[in-house]
Amino acid sequence: MSKNTKYNAAIIIIGNEILSGRTKDTNTSTLATWLNSLGVSVSEVRVIPDLENVIVETLNNLRKTYNYVFTTGGIGPTHDDITAKSVSKAFGVKYQIHKEAFEILESYYKVGEFNEGRQKMVWMPENANLILNPTSGAPGFSVENVFCLPGVPSILKSMLGALKNDIVGGKPILSHTISLRTVESEIASSLNKVQNKNKDVEIGSYPFFHAGKLGVSIVIRSENQSEIDNCNSQILKFVEEKNIKIVDR
Amino acid sequence: MSKNTKYNAAIIIIGNEILSGRTKDTNTSTLATWLNSLGVSVSEVRVIPDLENVIVETLNNLRKTYNYVFTTGGIGPTHDDITAKSVSKAFGVKYQIHKEAFEILESYYKVGEFNEGRQKMVWMPENANLILNPTSGAPGFSVENVFCLPGVPSILKSMLGALKNDIVGGKPILSHTISLRTVESEIASSLNKVQNKNKDVEIGSYPFFHAGKLGVSIVIRSENQSEIDNCNSQILKFVEEKNIKIVDR
Repeated sequence: MSKNTKYNAAIIIIGNEILSGRTKDTNTSTLATWLNSLGVSVSEVRVIPDLENVIVETLNNLRKTYNYVFTTGGIGPTHDDITAKSVSKAFGVKYQIHKEAFEILESYYKVGEFNEGRQKMVWMPENANLILNPTSGAPGFSVENVFCLPGVPSILKSMLGALKNDIVGGKPILSHTISLRTVESEIASSLNKVQNKNKDVEIGSYPFFHAGKLGVSIVIRSENQSEIDNCNSQILKFVEEKNIKIVDR
Repeated sequence: MSKNTKYNAAIIIIGNEILSGRTKDTNTSTLATWLNSLGVSVSEVRVIPDLENVIVETLNNLRKTYNYVFTTGGIGPTHDDITAKSVSKAFGVKYQIHKEAFEILESYYKVGEFNEGRQKMVWMPENANLILNPTSGAPGFSVENVFCLPGVPSILKSMLGALKNDIVGGKPILSHTISLRTVESEIASSLNKVQNKNKDVEIGSYPFFHAGKLGVSIVIRSENQSEIDNCNSQILKFVEEKNIKIVDR
């Protein structure tokens, strides 16, 4: 979350498979990286179960708070796919067959294969805008500032290109990472001074273990490259003074 | 989220590094799998930034809603580690040096190495209970039903053993997975019938791509093994009728 960004978003991960621990979420990272490049920062992520009342309440809360809300999951053909119905309810609009989506899937499948299960995927909130799916046919959709994408990571990724023009953001959020062979406590005080001198830049410190060795990655984030460069010089100064080794990471 | 479970938890992931997309969260999966084995289901996960007012508000909201709240991240020595201070504020208690934590770290580090940065890690909410850290010394802590753990996945994992006796749960939540060489729309209607006949069991359907092939994993979750077995038989029945291949996954 860059401190200067005016455009923000929330992500809602709809899926019991994340809450059960069975599946690790990777869609947040995909969406956040993409949104940052469009000048939108992600302020909050919620992982919630496949329960209509929870989805409706969460959506109605977040869509009024943030510029954009992205949901992932729950738009397939099975009984646990209830996102489209829940979004309809949240906006108080009809849940109905989307003609264009119907036509897309009718021509996507062979004759006789556009069965009952698949037809469920064309039921959407009234007047939803389609988000085309170049991987597996079934489109996602958006209503106002809410964008509904599938949960399968490779399909989600393939759909972002079509969305780019719908997202108005600020300057891209830039970041620079310096990885050091040290521990956080050795640099905490110096790093704090740099942060205090550069209030508009976000400086994060993240310990890591890699190849059996401890290290710390310092991440500088801002919309402004010269502010990042400034911070970077100040950090490299104390790194050199303390004789700390810079590492690849 | 098993439908029958009486004990529930929320997880708060504190960390700009997840919201920026730089790091993928794996602690949710670790915590959820462990909590399920203790008969506690995870109802909600929130990823929030390193901002005191957001941490305080989220904590105070969730700790009154769920039996347990787990936080990860923000308990190290750097300026962006503000979890302990925020928890103190949420509970309205003093943020002060924890004597036992001080003694632990004083003897953990060599003489002269227990510096200012490291001493920050012994500041905790008044009367916090320590969660011992067998990996890197600095303990986590709990206050009432809130358990604060570090963000580094391997350290977090190593601390769960010490916590087991503090968590009172129900029956362990069991699950069974059947993976099929099919697509969701082929089984949606039959699966829906099985779910309707077994309302107390949670049945999830998750498409996957593996080794270039499409498939669906059906996950049955319940506290009751005989209910899982029952569902399993009903699913295997339609799988056989439809001549769908069962695969390893």
